[in-house]
Amino acid sequence: MRDSRERRVDRRSFITKAGLGAGAAALAAPAVAQGNITWRMVTTWPKNFPGLGVGAQRLADRITAASGGRLTIQVYSAGELVPPLQSLDAVIDGTAEMSHSAAYYWQNKSSALNFFTGVPYGMTSTELAGWMRHMGGQELWDEVYDQFGVKGFLSGNTGTQAGGWFRDEVTGLDSLKGLRFRTPGLGGRVWEKLGVTATNMAAGEIFQALQSGALDAAEFVGPYNDLALGFHQVAKNYYFPSFVEPGLATELVVDKAKYSELPEDLQAIIRDVSQAEYDMVASDFAANDPRALNTLMNEHGVQVKQFPEEVLEAAAGAAKEVLGELRDSGDDLTKRTTESFIESLKLLRTKAQTADANFIRAREQYFEM
Amino acid sequence: MRDSRERRVDRRSFITKAGLGAGAAALAAPAVAQGNITWRMVTTWPKNFPGLGVGAQRLADRITAASGGRLTIQVYSAGELVPPLQSLDAVIDGTAEMSHSAAYYWQNKSSALNFFTGVPYGMTSTELAGWMRHMGGQELWDEVYDQFGVKGFLSGNTGTQAGGWFRDEVTGLDSLKGLRFRTPGLGGRVWEKLGVTATNMAAGEIFQALQSGALDAAEFVGPYNDLALGFHQVAKNYYFPSFVEPGLATELVVDKAKYSELPEDLQAIIRDVSQAEYDMVASDFAANDPRALNTLMNEHGVQVKQFPEEVLEAAAGAAKEVLGELRDSGDDLTKRTTESFIESLKLLRTKAQTADANFIRAREQYFEM
Repeated sequence: MRDSRERRVDRRSFITKAGLGAGAAALAAPAVAQGNITWRMVTTWPKNFPGLGVGAQRLADRITAASGGRLTIQVYSAGELVPPLQSLDAVIDGTAEMSHSAAYYWQNKSSALNFFTGVPYGMTSTELAGWMRHMGGQELWDEVYDQFGVKGFLSGNTGTQAGGWFRDEVTGLDSLKGLRFRTPGLGGRVWEKLGVTATNMAAGEIFQALQSGALDAAEFVGPYNDLALGFHQVAKNYYFPSFVEPGLATELVVDKAKYSELPEDLQAIIRDVSQAEYDMVASDFAANDPRALNTLMNEHGVQVKQFPEEVLEAAAGAAKEVLGELRDSGDDLTKRTTESFIESLKLLRTKAQTADANFIRAREQYFEM
Repeated sequence: MRDSRERRVDRRSFITKAGLGAGAAALAAPAVAQGNITWRMVTTWPKNFPGLGVGAQRLADRITAASGGRLTIQVYSAGELVPPLQSLDAVIDGTAEMSHSAAYYWQNKSSALNFFTGVPYGMTSTELAGWMRHMGGQELWDEVYDQFGVKGFLSGNTGTQAGGWFRDEVTGLDSLKGLRFRTPGLGGRVWEKLGVTATNMAAGEIFQALQSGALDAAEFVGPYNDLALGFHQVAKNYYFPSFVEPGLATELVVDKAKYSELPEDLQAIIRDVSQAEYDMVASDFAANDPRALNTLMNEHGVQVKQFPEEVLEAAAGAAKEVLGELRDSGDDLTKRTTESFIESLKLLRTKAQTADANFIRAREQYFEM
């Protein structure tokens, strides 16, 4: 998600810090001095990455503060201690005690993990919290991660994401055939069923690929992150909403054995601060996606568009197929997780249907001040 | 919000506990033994009141747990230590150190306080968090409460509420004239502009008033709370959404001087746990409003209906008038708060418009599993 120049700068800054001693202790075993513990948190985010990287650092600082320094968290951004997509493995093998990332990056370990981040046509940020905290979602997640000796806590949510940047207008299903589209994971599988050629690509490579024509379209997160990456300079059609990413949760993962050995108050602090950060990151995106979108539209002439109805409809059918394939993939725990998610969504969505969506629609139509 | 029988039971249970010594210390000055502090939290909610009363108790328990008992919170439900609507005054006069309630109950102290709970045609739960945490809302709230020597933290949100129980169908504006409707606060002022006679009434009195015909309609919170009060037995038309309460936040208020004297880690714990509870209460309503609505519809034959368009439109005009009256009421801080709220809402709502509402609409229309 970063370009090589960023990586070099971060690496140098890390080495400098380590040379001054700040990072040195963290490279050895966890420090325990006068009852104080230092834990290493690896992340998949670049340092200061809007919303997510900032959230990882803030979460670490809040644990340190709420524990009065008894549990001090040292953050390593993507690539500083391990490569970004090895952050979970780093906790499993003991290189770090914590990882701040997103569960669906580890879907090769268990397909069930997709549901604890977000799936196509799935749950919004609030709905996901409803399932995880009050309808058995966390218990299923614990069951999945127990197999790897770790425990996960929700630690943020991007809210409904953007659908993507398209060089040409999306006029219907026909216009999607053969389109080279950067969109990873389950979302990519849904888009492939609509005829696009889905591909993954690191954030730092997307801009050039769009510019050269190697890509026809790309989706990343939403305005807050996308503005920083400059996609608007090479593609003016910005489509909403992302029906494949209606809300993407981040996770804090901890080494379960080490977590269980902590005094109960420190366990509570990790749990409580993670939940506070779920709200803090979601509200950060709620506030800063619109600010960035405003800049994109008013200063950069970006056209905000909605996907055509036949695309939304076909995508819903494709999403149903993809989730059905997960459910029937042969793994019992993935089957139970899929079923719990779908049953919970059936209930949760009735609140959106009766109350939320109708309020928002009425406000858009009638209330201006 | 409780009937007299509930009050007697709670009072007796409280006296018994006090007799056993558990509550005795809390009636005297805050206990400080071996560095441990006990604080009293008064609330406006009955004990075990779904979502809100349960949330107050859980928040207290979480602070106690995260502090390892160094800060132990003793909860007093509505009426146990002071009458429900004196909970803020109890903190101001030193009877308690904390109050769990809703800021708009104190609008007689400052009209600005309405905005930190929720206003007609205002912000959803996520939008309110966006304004409060990332767009200057908390700072304005601090300015208001500084005048009274207290500090407020958001501690929960009901999400979009129900519009109300109506004995007869709402067919249009004409059908509202002279209707006797239990709906308090700013919402009541909006409804009065539509021709109803708005009245307030304690929760325990609503059922009988609806049954006897003294009331034609009543709104309380949403399915989760309303089911428990039995309104469906006397009014079958359940209208959505509440355009006057699109999301109602609760508050934790602390004595500011005593808060400032706490060690920094305990200050952080109060702040972090309150924010965690904002998510916990919102997701509790997200999960349990639909469960209760399901019961109301499928077991009690309740008809869920949407308000007619001309009611939604007229209400938007009325809400604009009511907010304009607040802004121009002559108090500078209320004016600045109104302006900040309105400017922030202008930005925040664009995310609902471009992404959230369109996703929910597409999911309703096309995705079934």
